[in-house]
Amino acid sequence: MRDFMATLSSQWDQGRFLCVGLDPVEELIPMSEAPLAFLAKIVTATAHVASCFKPNLQFFLGLGREGILILEHTIAHIRQVAPGVPVILDGKFGDIGKTNDATMKLVMSGKVDAVTLNPYVGPEGLDPFLRQKSLGCFVLCRTSNKGSDWMQKMKLQNGNCVYEQVAYDVMTGWNANGNCGLVVGATFPEELAKVRHIVGDMPILMPGIGTQGAEIEPTVNAGQDDRGRGMVINASSSISYASKEADYPKAAGAEAVRLHELITSFRKAA
Amino acid sequence: MRDFMATLSSQWDQGRFLCVGLDPVEELIPMSEAPLAFLAKIVTATAHVASCFKPNLQFFLGLGREGILILEHTIAHIRQVAPGVPVILDGKFGDIGKTNDATMKLVMSGKVDAVTLNPYVGPEGLDPFLRQKSLGCFVLCRTSNKGSDWMQKMKLQNGNCVYEQVAYDVMTGWNANGNCGLVVGATFPEELAKVRHIVGDMPILMPGIGTQGAEIEPTVNAGQDDRGRGMVINASSSISYASKEADYPKAAGAEAVRLHELITSFRKAA
Repeated sequence: MRDFMATLSSQWDQGRFLCVGLDPVEELIPMSEAPLAFLAKIVTATAHVASCFKPNLQFFLGLGREGILILEHTIAHIRQVAPGVPVILDGKFGDIGKTNDATMKLVMSGKVDAVTLNPYVGPEGLDPFLRQKSLGCFVLCRTSNKGSDWMQKMKLQNGNCVYEQVAYDVMTGWNANGNCGLVVGATFPEELAKVRHIVGDMPILMPGIGTQGAEIEPTVNAGQDDRGRGMVINASSSISYASKEADYPKAAGAEAVRLHELITSFRKAA
Repeated sequence: MRDFMATLSSQWDQGRFLCVGLDPVEELIPMSEAPLAFLAKIVTATAHVASCFKPNLQFFLGLGREGILILEHTIAHIRQVAPGVPVILDGKFGDIGKTNDATMKLVMSGKVDAVTLNPYVGPEGLDPFLRQKSLGCFVLCRTSNKGSDWMQKMKLQNGNCVYEQVAYDVMTGWNANGNCGLVVGATFPEELAKVRHIVGDMPILMPGIGTQGAEIEPTVNAGQDDRGRGMVINASSSISYASKEADYPKAAGAEAVRLHELITSFRKAA
């Protein structure tokens, strides 16, 4: 298994910070194309600017019995047309030890480079992921949904909010193998800036661009590290469903390029 | 879709409190049987004492491309041999709104009665589950793993630990449709008693019996409500893998009966 952090760093060296999220919803796929054909075209159309691809496991499960097969074939297609672009399996995995060993079978068979993890069970429960030095582990810190305050902004006796404590502890404890990142919604730029301050140059996956309403300029301003890096800025629906017509691969490619160029324009000079 | 809470209550009326967890691990299946045949035999052997069956989604994903198909067939088998026994899909789902709509397709197509949810994204993100009145929603509160203190026992400024706050808020807010329960590990009987005190007669799913080390007596003492009900006591591996030989269905049935009788013996007189 190749090292995720090295692969990501090489993408950053090439100035790529856009993550293309793959959230297939049968009813939204243009021209009623088969999901795999649709996903393959989106991948091909965006591969030249994508820093990562992020298939969301739940959307593939929503495709039915063939979902896992479609996921595997989609990843195989990514390997073929974009061998240097790592794959983040967005499963928000949050079960405990032995159960996570089962999930690791999916991760290994899919040749996935990184996963997303839910921190609620703690690092001991998530150890089957964290101990894989080459596997990127993006831990949910501040999710992009509008109701994410409920637990994430609970105030602790030490003065931190829960999401800040997650950032501190992942930074100082969970990241012993240097394979951790965080997930912080681009929908909360002020809190994104706080987390960036806490974690230095750790990678932050930032969902929420496009359909969820976040803009590129505040996201890059708040999310980049001192060297204008550290960002994995995700857009899903706004790329995949940019057009409902037969020209959708072209439209997806154009939207990805537009986002990529916006990101580039707001980055600090290296 | 039938109402989960009504179905569960009818199981309790019949004195059934044991939940049979289905965690298929290919390497552990006796006699190298096919996973579906193995699961069907475990279900048939335990159906006469099971209050619920709880397939854990991650273990099915670990079976490979056929995992979702095997899950669907297993649920179909449960419907056939034990139509009154509800199915809890243990997915620890914890994504946000639109993504959960995709998961609901799996839930509906599988004719699942209840799910487990991770609370980190908050009730707004989980609304696609919570708003389904007939769907049971078991929210992770205190997980059974030994490192679950990390977030769950963080101390809040109001004096509660995070897991206590989850119990309070699910009880007073999330449960507007009367379809919520909590997950509290049997491995922590003192905290199970605290949660029971907070939530009254709300159903509590209690994993951790058997392989994880929890015992029935303290679990029932701490976990039952005032009427000796409210319990969904889960055992998985200790039932499914009770024998490595051809007699494994008989051994599984015997272990389920043993646990059922132990639970019965420690319950308060109704």
